[in-house]
Amino acid sequence: MDKPLSTEEIRPDGQGFLPGLAIDCVIFGFHDNQLKILLLEYRHTDLFALPGGFIRSGENLNDAAKRTLNDRTSLRDIYLDQFYVFGDMSRYDPNPLRTILLKRGLDPVNDHWLLQRFVTVGFYALVDFTKAIPIPDLLSDNCQWHDLATLPPLMLDHNLIVAKALDTLRADLDRKLIVFNLLPETFTMNDLQSLYETILGQPLHRSSFQRKMLGLGILERLKKQYSGGAHKAPYLYRFVHNAPKTQDSLL
Amino acid sequence: MDKPLSTEEIRPDGQGFLPGLAIDCVIFGFHDNQLKILLLEYRHTDLFALPGGFIRSGENLNDAAKRTLNDRTSLRDIYLDQFYVFGDMSRYDPNPLRTILLKRGLDPVNDHWLLQRFVTVGFYALVDFTKAIPIPDLLSDNCQWHDLATLPPLMLDHNLIVAKALDTLRADLDRKLIVFNLLPETFTMNDLQSLYETILGQPLHRSSFQRKMLGLGILERLKKQYSGGAHKAPYLYRFVHNAPKTQDSLL
Repeated sequence: MDKPLSTEEIRPDGQGFLPGLAIDCVIFGFHDNQLKILLLEYRHTDLFALPGGFIRSGENLNDAAKRTLNDRTSLRDIYLDQFYVFGDMSRYDPNPLRTILLKRGLDPVNDHWLLQRFVTVGFYALVDFTKAIPIPDLLSDNCQWHDLATLPPLMLDHNLIVAKALDTLRADLDRKLIVFNLLPETFTMNDLQSLYETILGQPLHRSSFQRKMLGLGILERLKKQYSGGAHKAPYLYRFVHNAPKTQDSLL
Repeated sequence: MDKPLSTEEIRPDGQGFLPGLAIDCVIFGFHDNQLKILLLEYRHTDLFALPGGFIRSGENLNDAAKRTLNDRTSLRDIYLDQFYVFGDMSRYDPNPLRTILLKRGLDPVNDHWLLQRFVTVGFYALVDFTKAIPIPDLLSDNCQWHDLATLPPLMLDHNLIVAKALDTLRADLDRKLIVFNLLPETFTMNDLQSLYETILGQPLHRSSFQRKMLGLGILERLKKQYSGGAHKAPYLYRFVHNAPKTQDSLL
């Protein structure tokens, strides 16, 4: 447990943090043709949760999210964006956190700040699965990748937060060139198509997909390295970073 | 001043409201080929601000935004969506609010809750200009439409909030059929094109615009009413509400 939630955060008075406001991160990775997210697990409690955090009194909201993300993945400079604020009364339930505090031998006094109502800002991040090093926080037992297709029931409204993050990712596919953050430096056209298909949840036509992707002018095709039968290997592509970040609008 | 900020909201302790969290609304209307937004004015202070509000302890975040919007426009059931949370330290400046409280004869004690740091959730709304009745809040002198093209300098980071709302509206043009909320029940193809052009800030080709709009299958063309020279009047259209709410994705 290298990078715990700070011990300040589990002090009952919450001093040093903005009251009532939290951050939850849906951290997407892509591996073995599966879209995955990072979950914290609290053993012997049947509780899974999104990695989250709080905003320090003098800290920018977005910096707090970056810090949380860095603490859980050890990655810096990764794609991260806000997508929605979850502020319904129905999400307010102090019981799971009381259970977790008790399990850690902490006293869940009734006015413990973590048991109050929280509005949470949802962030989603796209990371290179091969580079992230999942790290649990102070209250959790582990932090692991889970297939999005087979998630366990999550704490509070976290399943809803994941669903909304996926909706946003799908909508953003068309207008922001962000999915390349989920791929390694070089990839095949098949890798890219598989990623789009997994996010969209539907098969795409190979030739029209390829035509559209190449038409965007954002892919550089690498020279094949000759080595024995390697001429039969598929072409590798690299995302060209100085391409326009958003696609043309409809009109 | 029919629908003031409640007197509770200007009590120094902020009791009954979530601490440190606010709402700001960018309320768009369209009139005379101009995109407009509603601003509150504080006379003799040179201060203009977006209509905003706070979240009651037992209230859903989105309901608080609906309440704020209803209080300022007297409209119900209008299109409203979150677009971004503004939480930088650089937006924290107690001076404008201190000025406003003083001007209203209220004591801006140093621990007045309105002078603390606030994170604010930006909402944008699209309303039918002809139906909205702007109403100032308890602290402001008036609430009026201002042309987006010639806004005065706004309080705190409110100019930035407006810019981000406009970015969102532009991006959403392509994927959500929401602009019809800015038009009256019936409109000409010219009205619709003018609205798109104003939002996008660029002229569009008449024939391709018309072809694309009709191709979406969301417009019903009304029969012309014969009355003298009325056969020369342009066709009127109506938005068909049961059409798909989002356009087809790129792929």
